Amino acid sequence: MEFSMLELVRMQDAALRARAQKVVPGGMWGHLNAAKLPDRYPQFFSHGEGGLLWDVDGNRYVDFMCSWGPNLLGHKHPEVEEAAERQRRMGDCLNGPAEVMVELAELVVDTISHADWTMFQKNGTDATTTCVTVARAATGKRKILVAKGAYHGAVPWCSPSLIGVTAEDRAHLAYYTFNDIESLEGAVNGAGDDIAAIVVSAYRHDMSFDQELPTQDFARAVRRLADAKGAAVILDEVRTGFRLHTAGSWEPLGVSPDLSAWSKAIANGYALSAVTGSDWLRKAASQVFVTGSFWAGAVSMAAALATLKVVRRDNVPDKIARLGQMLRDGLETRSRQFGLSIRQSGPAQMPTVLFDDDADFAKGYAFCNATLAKGVYFHPRHNMFLCAAHTEADIADALEAAEHGFATVAKTAPN
Amino acid sequence: MEFSMLELVRMQDAALRARAQKVVPGGMWGHLNAAKLPDRYPQFFSHGEGGLLWDVDGNRYVDFMCSWGPNLLGHKHPEVEEAAERQRRMGDCLNGPAEVMVELAELVVDTISHADWTMFQKNGTDATTTCVTVARAATGKRKILVAKGAYHGAVPWCSPSLIGVTAEDRAHLAYYTFNDIESLEGAVNGAGDDIAAIVVSAYRHDMSFDQELPTQDFARAVRRLADAKGAAVILDEVRTGFRLHTAGSWEPLGVSPDLSAWSKAIANGYALSAVTGSDWLRKAASQVFVTGSFWAGAVSMAAALATLKVVRRDNVPDKIARLGQMLRDGLETRSRQFGLSIRQSGPAQMPTVLFDDDADFAKGYAFCNATLAKGVYFHPRHNMFLCAAHTEADIADALEAAEHGFATVAKTAPN
Repeated sequence: MEFSMLELVRMQDAALRARAQKVVPGGMWGHLNAAKLPDRYPQFFSHGEGGLLWDVDGNRYVDFMCSWGPNLLGHKHPEVEEAAERQRRMGDCLNGPAEVMVELAELVVDTISHADWTMFQKNGTDATTTCVTVARAATGKRKILVAKGAYHGAVPWCSPSLIGVTAEDRAHLAYYTFNDIESLEGAVNGAGDDIAAIVVSAYRHDMSFDQELPTQDFARAVRRLADAKGAAVILDEVRTGFRLHTAGSWEPLGVSPDLSAWSKAIANGYALSAVTGSDWLRKAASQVFVTGSFWAGAVSMAAALATLKVVRRDNVPDKIARLGQMLRDGLETRSRQFGLSIRQSGPAQMPTVLFDDDADFAKGYAFCNATLAKGVYFHPRHNMFLCAAHTEADIADALEAAEHGFATVAKTAPN
Repeated sequence: MEFSMLELVRMQDAALRARAQKVVPGGMWGHLNAAKLPDRYPQFFSHGEGGLLWDVDGNRYVDFMCSWGPNLLGHKHPEVEEAAERQRRMGDCLNGPAEVMVELAELVVDTISHADWTMFQKNGTDATTTCVTVARAATGKRKILVAKGAYHGAVPWCSPSLIGVTAEDRAHLAYYTFNDIESLEGAVNGAGDDIAAIVVSAYRHDMSFDQELPTQDFARAVRRLADAKGAAVILDEVRTGFRLHTAGSWEPLGVSPDLSAWSKAIANGYALSAVTGSDWLRKAASQVFVTGSFWAGAVSMAAALATLKVVRRDNVPDKIARLGQMLRDGLETRSRQFGLSIRQSGPAQMPTVLFDDDADFAKGYAFCNATLAKGVYFHPRHNMFLCAAHTEADIADALEAAEHGFATVAKTAPN
């Protein structure tokens, strides 16, 4: 009965998927391709409000992916939309930047503790690639150390896939294990005197694995080894920025990067990314040639300016940490009630939930399919995202759906 | 007198430049850095209407840079803005694409003659890089042939600058000379059986040089040599798309590419780029991992859908070609009146104007400074852009300003 209802309400989605298959390779690209998700996930969406999302068949979800990160304050946040609209009435893509670029740059430099300067782009990948280019320009060195399995973008030098990538695209990458000081030392020693940068995610958020927060010893080792080699520490904040800590995710660790890459949440869904840097990299940043047709777009900057003001005023990281902890505690209690063992990892603002004894993710898929049917959009393998528009009532709804999800898993695959 | 007036009306711009110097390396990045232009060019802009542009000091310009390409139909085009606003009220950046992605993909495939499929990104560089990655994935080969001096983006594999770039980033590039079949054959033979693609601009639009339209023989040779090697022809339409010909810039030559990269004008200023491809590359395009946080953004797609409908309905390339020819003819007549010899090259829709005997661009700079003072924004070295909002009255204004510009050049540097 429930199954046939779901079949019915996926008609628009199925029709659009069929049309998309003809004109878009595989029907959709990259991380947003729903073919990689359990079968009940919709591919196409209609609209969003706050922390809620509707698919094209009219199904409503309490959404814990938040557009895979960009939705930080809630869809259609009034202050962000008003600022964007005000700038839109003036102009967006002109022959150069508008005044708002300076206002935003000043606020970013004031907000991010390590930042002496900033530059703006469109994609997270633009920001990480710019960081690497600036580090090489400043140091005159080539090697880039990255953690095994870490995601830093979707172009040949860093793509998680090697399809269409040449060996030379990764010639100067060297790998270490996140939170493993010995492996980092090994990678540093292996690279000799040719290290331009150590790239590190704010925390280890590899998909399908338990997440790991950095230890303070590890963060300090990154800083110490980079300093010893005259290399830059590049903190990849694309996924974490403005969710973990307003001044930078490593602020509580007391460790400062030299360059940080920001995107996703920075303009609450408007396309923008940013690099922040320390003074010793300023000259190199002015010498590299990085640009894009829309990088001076003023509307996304006005949106970012409004977003960062709200983040600071409302202490958004604290607010969503509290809501995330409420979700986490509720999931823990309810999973135990059904005799199920789950592992919750990562910061509370960006929860990852994995089932024990679930190598093929069958339990996770069954759980998420079941919560979807109850109007809650979780992800079975990827870190999720809270947003400031989520309410305690949303968390309560999510926990009720989770109860149904755990019951489904307990029935079909008893622990 | 005129000089001191201009000094006065640059106060806002000067103040913003001073503030920007503190928080943005060099005050501005990339192609939009006004420090690379003659001294009277403003850095900061306030607003745009149609083909007109205002700087932050309230100076009004008839604008022939058109945001360096994106402004195709005119700033704030009512049909584009209405479509964008309608989509914005629904949603922009969601957990996946909206219906408009399919509508746009269908229209792109219907519009671009060679296209069997399409994918969307944000930057022109995203599109060219995706083309290269898809070509390598499809062919299993590595070498990419590019014309010497051609601009295909601003990341290490293709950046016009080598600062921060390693030798390995360009390891598999081989170079030919645009319109030179012999050099192309040489490059093809040099690359042996390892050619993934020949990348070619729709025409040669290298900055500071006379522009060259492709000869039909050259275009056919590109196609023939790629076919002989099983390589893809990648047409870079980022700068030219929807200005030269609605169905693709090489349509009048009767030569079809396998992949094309689009951006700039495709959404009339909204941040969007696209790759179009032929069927034999569809599978590879579905296998490569390319993605971005905002690539499914529905508002820019709604803007592109409206833009392409207007381009088709109004035959925008023809309209702006006619206006561009009017400008070109007028500049020719007026330069002669002042005994000055100029070279006008490139398509009329994207004019380049260079002075004879002007190796240091002193004449071009003096000319452009003088027209700026009269409210006309030309570029002394780069190709310019017409837009569909330009009127015959704008062209008349531009020619009057040009007269002043030529008079200034004739006075200070008589030919």
